[in-house]
Amino acid sequence: MKLASLKKGGRDGTLIVVDRGMQSAVAVPEVAPTMQAALDNWSDTGPALEAVFAKLQAGRREDAFPFDPGSLAAPLPRSYHWADGSAYVTHVELVRKARGAELPDSFWRDPLMYMGASDAFIGARDDIDVEDESWGIDFEAEVAVITDDVPAGTGADRASEHIKLIALVNDVSLRNLIPAELAKQFGFYQSKPQTAFSPVAVTPDELGDAWDGAKLHLPLIATWNGRRIGAPNAGRDMTFDFPQLIAHAAKTRALMAGTVIGSGTVSNVGSPDGSCCIAEVRCLETIANGKPETPFMSFGDRIEIEMLDAAGACIFGSIDQRVRRYERP
Amino acid sequence: MKLASLKKGGRDGTLIVVDRGMQSAVAVPEVAPTMQAALDNWSDTGPALEAVFAKLQAGRREDAFPFDPGSLAAPLPRSYHWADGSAYVTHVELVRKARGAELPDSFWRDPLMYMGASDAFIGARDDIDVEDESWGIDFEAEVAVITDDVPAGTGADRASEHIKLIALVNDVSLRNLIPAELAKQFGFYQSKPQTAFSPVAVTPDELGDAWDGAKLHLPLIATWNGRRIGAPNAGRDMTFDFPQLIAHAAKTRALMAGTVIGSGTVSNVGSPDGSCCIAEVRCLETIANGKPETPFMSFGDRIEIEMLDAAGACIFGSIDQRVRRYERP
Repeated sequence: MKLASLKKGGRDGTLIVVDRGMQSAVAVPEVAPTMQAALDNWSDTGPALEAVFAKLQAGRREDAFPFDPGSLAAPLPRSYHWADGSAYVTHVELVRKARGAELPDSFWRDPLMYMGASDAFIGARDDIDVEDESWGIDFEAEVAVITDDVPAGTGADRASEHIKLIALVNDVSLRNLIPAELAKQFGFYQSKPQTAFSPVAVTPDELGDAWDGAKLHLPLIATWNGRRIGAPNAGRDMTFDFPQLIAHAAKTRALMAGTVIGSGTVSNVGSPDGSCCIAEVRCLETIANGKPETPFMSFGDRIEIEMLDAAGACIFGSIDQRVRRYERP
Repeated sequence: MKLASLKKGGRDGTLIVVDRGMQSAVAVPEVAPTMQAALDNWSDTGPALEAVFAKLQAGRREDAFPFDPGSLAAPLPRSYHWADGSAYVTHVELVRKARGAELPDSFWRDPLMYMGASDAFIGARDDIDVEDESWGIDFEAEVAVITDDVPAGTGADRASEHIKLIALVNDVSLRNLIPAELAKQFGFYQSKPQTAFSPVAVTPDELGDAWDGAKLHLPLIATWNGRRIGAPNAGRDMTFDFPQLIAHAAKTRALMAGTVIGSGTVSNVGSPDGSCCIAEVRCLETIANGKPETPFMSFGDRIEIEMLDAAGACIFGSIDQRVRRYERP
């Protein structure tokens, strides 16, 4: 099934069930008013929501209304836990190579993961508000999973069963603020302002054979100002799969329902199908020509991120955002 | 006023108003069922909760019940944003000195801050569950503030007005997991398992002259297995005060209501009144004797953290936890 959240109804929005073709939707206050409420009690709400989805697919919900991506918050508008991995180590290796640094061998065995800002995810059509263009505005196209409660110490062999939903992410980054923050070793903070999500999140069964329980084997398409910048396959070159990322996050404590685990920028070895962020494009240019040529994003720029199934149908709806100059109040 | 959350009533607990002497309390479903609900709409709920507090103080709430710290979750049982600073730079300098490293001069001007796990704060009497003693179990006694909505770009000169509540924190740390995590530059993750809070959070006016709008000028007392390990003054040697920490966190995006901003381990130059974590004790030993003598915590150890007002009355109730061996399910 496909789920989303309308912006109306308060900070947590209003949970809606969306039909497979993303033409119609229905609110489900009788099951759960919000996505977090659904996730808090998924063993009950999951089957109830699936029953609603079946009726909606069959055209048997008379209270259905037209689906409008412009009306949406992120599927989970605010979350208690957003853990973003950097699971495509080939990308990390490339970034290091561009600045002449060695990749520690441990990076192939021990996942990179940072805790991100989850108090205000933004919707697929929301603007990316940034005060200063010189901060180096970039998108990062990623895949993310949303879990139920994961007990502390859960191993990768048991983690897949905790993946309840899958979505796409634009992990907006301010590239020129990153080096100083990483040098302090405390992780990203000011350099990761807002995270946007695809219109809908889907259950794993919606993905058919493309989902193997650990990775999503489809190209992730990033289009910048109308030009396709990349479509690497998210199932290829993912050094740490989602169950491994979940196990890493849960090593010393439980993860609560609604935890969002991101893949990091999707990237394939050699970037044959392009890149999912500008930083990678610039690294490739630096390695080839000694310096980057492609600038970061400007105010007014547009970024679209989507994933198509084998038949060419859009699975998650598209992230479609513009960068807007933020004015302090 | 003083506020707390009972464990009963679901994942977000039940908001209660507590009298100044922490003898009685009352639930306030007519104002807000949970602390997050109160913070989401503080301009309305704040005055309404103050009115309840006044009645409770006057003995005019017949539905009051005895206050029991053992029944409590953290005042905010789960939060969407937990930003922990390291504002007492003297502590950071000491840690560096113990390992023979220089403190970058920028550390005196640019705050250290990491994003912490906020999906499962624990109560003041909850056990500290850790699987492996060899991870180096330590407490960190801190002060924290809880904000309402803070617009992006809010300066330190305007940040104080967003501080709605103040509490004490035990930022449990797994010291032996920290070096490898910091080396990866992505911040703490597995090394920060659970964060515990004092029984109550209080409004700034409860602190009288001890709160100057930016710092809390009282000793923070840490007692380990019945022995006072330190009582440094939280108002002294705080390089970055709370408005500065809030401004740092809000530089590139808004902070949502219920954001918790921590001070980091309270520490005074030269540690004349002891330390608020074992790591600092061990650093002092290393500098004096070439190696640390005090071990980290063991299963069964007890840690108490509290703050007394000028008259000797306990302000926040005491954090009083024991370390327990965690067994995987």
